Amino acid sequence: MVETPDEKETGRIEAFSDGVFAIAITLLVLEIKVPNHSTVETSGLVSALLSLYPSYLAFLTSFATILVMWVNHHRIFSLVRRSDHTFLYWNGLLLLFVTFVPFPTAVLAEYLLHPEAKVAAGIYAGTFLALAIAFSGLWRHASQGGRLLAQGAKQEDVKEITKQYRFGWPLYLTALVLSFVSVWLGVGLCIVLAVFFAFRGLSLKQS
Amino acid sequence: MVETPDEKETGRIEAFSDGVFAIAITLLVLEIKVPNHSTVETSGLVSALLSLYPSYLAFLTSFATILVMWVNHHRIFSLVRRSDHTFLYWNGLLLLFVTFVPFPTAVLAEYLLHPEAKVAAGIYAGTFLALAIAFSGLWRHASQGGRLLAQGAKQEDVKEITKQYRFGWPLYLTALVLSFVSVWLGVGLCIVLAVFFAFRGLSLKQS
Amino acid sequence: MVETPDEKETGRIEAFSDGVFAIAITLLVLEIKVPNHSTVETSGLVSALLSLYPSYLAFLTSFATILVMWVNHHRIFSLVRRSDHTFLYWNGLLLLFVTFVPFPTAVLAEYLLHPEAKVAAGIYAGTFLALAIAFSGLWRHASQGGRLLAQGAKQEDVKEITKQYRFGWPLYLTALVLSFVSVWLGVGLCIVLAVFFAFRGLSLKQS
Amino acid sequence: MVETPDEKETGRIEAFSDGVFAIAITLLVLEIKVPNHSTVETSGLVSALLSLYPSYLAFLTSFATILVMWVNHHRIFSLVRRSDHTFLYWNGLLLLFVTFVPFPTAVLAEYLLHPEAKVAAGIYAGTFLALAIAFSGLWRHASQGGRLLAQGAKQEDVKEITKQYRFGWPLYLTALVLSFVSVWLGVGLCIVLAVFFAFRGLSLKQS
Repeated sequence: MVETPDEKETGRIEAFSDGVFAIAITLLVLEIKVPNHSTVETSGLVSALLSLYPSYLAFLTSFATILVMWVNHHRIFSLVRRSDHTFLYWNGLLLLFVTFVPFPTAVLAEYLLHPEAKVAAGIYAGTFLALAIAFSGLWRHASQGGRLLAQGAKQEDVKEITKQYRFGWPLYLTALVLSFVSVWLGVGLCIVLAVFFAFRGLSLKQS
Repeated sequence: MVETPDEKETGRIEAFSDGVFAIAITLLVLEIKVPNHSTVETSGLVSALLSLYPSYLAFLTSFATILVMWVNHHRIFSLVRRSDHTFLYWNGLLLLFVTFVPFPTAVLAEYLLHPEAKVAAGIYAGTFLALAIAFSGLWRHASQGGRLLAQGAKQEDVKEITKQYRFGWPLYLTALVLSFVSVWLGVGLCIVLAVFFAFRGLSLKQS
Repeated sequence: MVETPDEKETGRIEAFSDGVFAIAITLLVLEIKVPNHSTVETSGLVSALLSLYPSYLAFLTSFATILVMWVNHHRIFSLVRRSDHTFLYWNGLLLLFVTFVPFPTAVLAEYLLHPEAKVAAGIYAGTFLALAIAFSGLWRHASQGGRLLAQGAKQEDVKEITKQYRFGWPLYLTALVLSFVSVWLGVGLCIVLAVFFAFRGLSLKQS
Repeated sequence: MVETPDEKETGRIEAFSDGVFAIAITLLVLEIKVPNHSTVETSGLVSALLSLYPSYLAFLTSFATILVMWVNHHRIFSLVRRSDHTFLYWNGLLLLFVTFVPFPTAVLAEYLLHPEAKVAAGIYAGTFLALAIAFSGLWRHASQGGRLLAQGAKQEDVKEITKQYRFGWPLYLTALVLSFVSVWLGVGLCIVLAVFFAFRGLSLKQS
């Protein structure tokens, strides 16, 4: 009647994490603000809506990144069978950054065309860097010596994920540094990374 | 202990998608703004609330459309048994448009009575067109040659859905075009389509 | 591999409805607005927070009502085994009113102390009346001649729910009418009904 | 086909509660407001973002507290097998306070640097005190004489939770009192308690 704690704990953490990912990805749209009437009187509705393109860009990039990270999160959990203190802490840290994403997204949307846009892009890339580090930590802790992995976990999958996470955070660090050189380089790399990890994650899943 | 990837993947995608649908449909109400005190002083609370009818209309139409699309999403997933790269991409695109719906809904509510209402109605119908195209793509990829379908999937159901999706996106394209002729025709067709697909979807389910 | 449609459909509707209830009940807090600095400078933070009591009252009443309605929704679904067109429509209508609740809650919070408070209270009670009617319709359709009920459903439970729903909507209609006599009578009856149905629902569950 | 009411009821309550916890923890980010353009013109974006530190602090503390309380909620439910009236009421009260958390968090963020910050800190600590009391009540009702516990529940776990809850609410009461001595002591104790209960809860789980 009572499940073993290990089995139950992973399922619970996964369901709760899924809820947080789904809500964070859906809240992003609240950051796109309807243009106010005075702007529309001046420039027309078409032009007012087009001028929101920083909001659309930030929305799209954050949506794609959270979606890819959700896929990655599930990939990790499909290989993990046990949980312990440290694993829970890394997962908590990960969820903290996931729930935080709407804020840097809104800051980037608001200040992408501002002289200080580099700051906004830096914080945006920095949040994704923090997420990548939390993913690395979570995976390293779970996989070292097979600590928390399921017995049936394929070694190729484990190695592939380890390889991917080795160059994940340095790439987001590069995006952070590039943001201070050029906003568009920094944000552009974030977009490229979302697309890249999407394809990589999917190809991994199928192999 | 470890499920086969195929079974698990579809269940996970479905649960995550359900969460996104449920959140997006519930966030719609945030777009109905409480009338401010200065409006109420001028015209009274009854009249201030009545003058929000564009908000109520947009809320109702978006609610009905998302609900119907959720039913359709489940119908597809009840017939699908496997998943692959392309299927995941189509589903991700679908969820992107679902989470986006509250924004065109708010724009329509704010500008339905404005001289440029056609723009708002066009974007509104255009979002549903994008959703219909994503549904078509998802279904076409899953069903062609029975690629991802369950063995137990009834041929009549498959054919019926294929037939329905063949005229789904052209109808929303018509709504988009009509929006530029008359806002009320465009929005009206969106309402009619929500009701129509609701009945069609349900009749399909029962036959 | 493929479940029978009936079993699956009810589970899916229930999970989706649960999501909508949980989100609607949690969004209520967004309607309590942090007092602005100018108000606080004038009257102090304590007094500014105390003056928000209409928000707290509306929050509490809506929270209790949605929670009770969630319990009732589950009670119905625990007795129902099949679903059909009409059942799905009634449930969709129910969810429409559930997602709408945050709006009349915000209107009541904003205008409870306004000369036209009766209008706000009337809309508030009217929303709950609409919810009660949707519940009646859902239950009547499911239970008439045992149409959609599980074979194991106890007759006493069925009769008890039928009895309860017979006087549910007239009581909310009374609250609506009382709102126009006195705001406090109308809102007070809504509070009493939430508490009453909570106890009644619970006692039913245990008997 | 029809599960026994007891089994089903606990599962339903747990899933609904999980949804509420996940949504409340994700809504917290909405309270961090993007700095407006006039502030940024005056002091620069970096300084404008840094000056939001009360928002970040309140966000972090509330996030950690809700996460820990979610872990505790699950711990209780893993030991409980039956439910009754009073248990449902205590859980409802708990969820009421969980959904309320974003409001005192926003008040604290807005008024942490204000002369009346003690009031904001007091309400913040007071909300957590209310949560701790609801947890105590829930657990005391479930565990007294083993009333609602599963037969397989380990006595050490039960005793450990009882011990923990005995000093939980007095510590939050202390935080409330300290808030009126010094805002930083009060808020600081809330942070310490979140960290402390996180470690304690985790160590308990493993023993």
